[in-house]
Amino acid sequence: MTEGPLLGRSVRFAGDGAVEILDRRVYPFEVRWVRCATSEDVAVAIERMVTQSSGPLYATTAGMVLAAREARTEPPGAAAERLRAAGARLVATRPTNNHIRDAVRAILDATVDGPLPDASGAELAEAVQAAASAHDAAYRARSAALGRHAAGLLEDGARVLTHCWADAYLIATVEAAREAGKALEFVCTETRPYLQGARLTAATLVEMGHRPTLITDGMVAAALADRLADVALVAADRVTLDGHVINKVGTLGVALAAREFGVPFYALVQAPDPLAPTAADVVIEHRDGEEVLHVLGARTAAEGVTGYYPAFDTTPPRLVTRIVTERGVYRPEDVKVPVDVKEAV
Amino acid sequence: MTEGPLLGRSVRFAGDGAVEILDRRVYPFEVRWVRCATSEDVAVAIERMVTQSSGPLYATTAGMVLAAREARTEPPGAAAERLRAAGARLVATRPTNNHIRDAVRAILDATVDGPLPDASGAELAEAVQAAASAHDAAYRARSAALGRHAAGLLEDGARVLTHCWADAYLIATVEAAREAGKALEFVCTETRPYLQGARLTAATLVEMGHRPTLITDGMVAAALADRLADVALVAADRVTLDGHVINKVGTLGVALAAREFGVPFYALVQAPDPLAPTAADVVIEHRDGEEVLHVLGARTAAEGVTGYYPAFDTTPPRLVTRIVTERGVYRPEDVKVPVDVKEAV
Repeated sequence: MTEGPLLGRSVRFAGDGAVEILDRRVYPFEVRWVRCATSEDVAVAIERMVTQSSGPLYATTAGMVLAAREARTEPPGAAAERLRAAGARLVATRPTNNHIRDAVRAILDATVDGPLPDASGAELAEAVQAAASAHDAAYRARSAALGRHAAGLLEDGARVLTHCWADAYLIATVEAAREAGKALEFVCTETRPYLQGARLTAATLVEMGHRPTLITDGMVAAALADRLADVALVAADRVTLDGHVINKVGTLGVALAAREFGVPFYALVQAPDPLAPTAADVVIEHRDGEEVLHVLGARTAAEGVTGYYPAFDTTPPRLVTRIVTERGVYRPEDVKVPVDVKEAV
Repeated sequence: MTEGPLLGRSVRFAGDGAVEILDRRVYPFEVRWVRCATSEDVAVAIERMVTQSSGPLYATTAGMVLAAREARTEPPGAAAERLRAAGARLVATRPTNNHIRDAVRAILDATVDGPLPDASGAELAEAVQAAASAHDAAYRARSAALGRHAAGLLEDGARVLTHCWADAYLIATVEAAREAGKALEFVCTETRPYLQGARLTAATLVEMGHRPTLITDGMVAAALADRLADVALVAADRVTLDGHVINKVGTLGVALAAREFGVPFYALVQAPDPLAPTAADVVIEHRDGEEVLHVLGARTAAEGVTGYYPAFDTTPPRLVTRIVTERGVYRPEDVKVPVDVKEAV
């Protein structure tokens, strides 16, 4: 991938084989790459929010490639164990989004837990590299399909309210809308505490030729009351089989305001999670409350307070107009159908 | 006033007669006083958000004292004109809250537009000083009455969600609850872009012995879904006669989340505005969108975006549980009754 916005190419291999991850904590003010020589370095980078949204998927597949290289000189059984341990370490970094879990599972299933249980370290390194590339490519292809379905929902000239940073799904939607000859405008929440909206979404939309309008997270209801946007469009970190949307904290407030002011609320996810029948099956990550007391590292809160930081919230299906997956557009109550069909095939 | 939290004493006269206004843009990180030698300096300070919430009321009465002193050597008619012009200048600074308009009106009614149309400059200076002090004292007394009514609504042990900075009303409520032997806990939104919640509300509650919990503006719905607070309590910059609550942008989102999760939503205002039958009669101030792109002066948004900054939003009466005034607690549809009674007397 050498085309498209920089955030769509934010994990790369350096010439010496190390993994470099674009530091989303400072982008676009600085374009800084965090160098990861080992799979453990990658896990730490994910924990520390160097990357997020679609980023951890690419970081994970790259981290598994590093883990396989680290196991290169080990005998077959030990190499497999090392790979599984590295996968478990990566999965443990962040609990709410499925990308990491699914990427690790796919790579293990294609190698040591599938056709290559007794591969040598050298064979494994090659097989993991191939499985990692295949997983990345499949994710990009599914995102592109999702983007075409999402663009189909948007009218020419639609003004789209975004929250946080929908990453590959947003890039694909913008590209598909452009191919379909539709003009779009964007209103972005800034998305505290990390400001993904003000930084990542805004910078990428500018890179793609748009001039987004920025609001604070508290202005969503006022903006929709003022008819500043026609539709709300967010990604989902997870969608349950009964249509609950788990996404960056603040999404629930967007959905409540959208319902109040008659604005459709669309959530983007490649597929609902077959392992999550309902919201109680999803772990909501709570991050360090200190992050709420700062902006870009500078203290913003009075001394003596305690921050509370649920990183995600849960929007119930009754507030969701449509869920857009790689397979098409669904009412939230119907989103599990393609999963059932898939399992039945 | 030499007691109570510093933000309750945030406008003062220096020894040389100049007005000093605590700079709320940097408090509590810095305790900086902006010195105003003239009534024009006071107007500029209000425009630049040196003070807000209850602050502009005290700044306005102090500014009128300065204006009267500036007119001290003028002949009667000219002194009166100068005072009226200074009042008009102060009223023009910010359109949404009534405090400035009412303070100017009260002082003019007690002087040049009332019993002293032909007073000399020297007489006027003395009369304006007395009217200004009386207006400040009446505001404090009404706030104290309001605080007792508000405290009466709160259960012992209640966890109270606040938005922005309710200033004199919040201080009075906390003091009245304490006198009534009620323990309260607080969850405060940070209130972007100026962070009044993270700085002013949080610092003052800490000063008063509390340990507030801080959330970002986008976390309100998640916090109420998680049962983090039992009641939402905000001030109102204006309440219309038909029960619309105009307050800091974000209030509407708080009210929507409160309704969704069965949490009472209370708004505090000394009295509804007899000149505002409904929401269409209130001018919503739109401030410079650049303020949305920064936090405490540091750039937080990507280049190429445009900020949108409605400073207030309007919460319709159907989302309001009770409005607390100096006269008691009202359903929003009944809030105009005491105004009618007052006018009838």
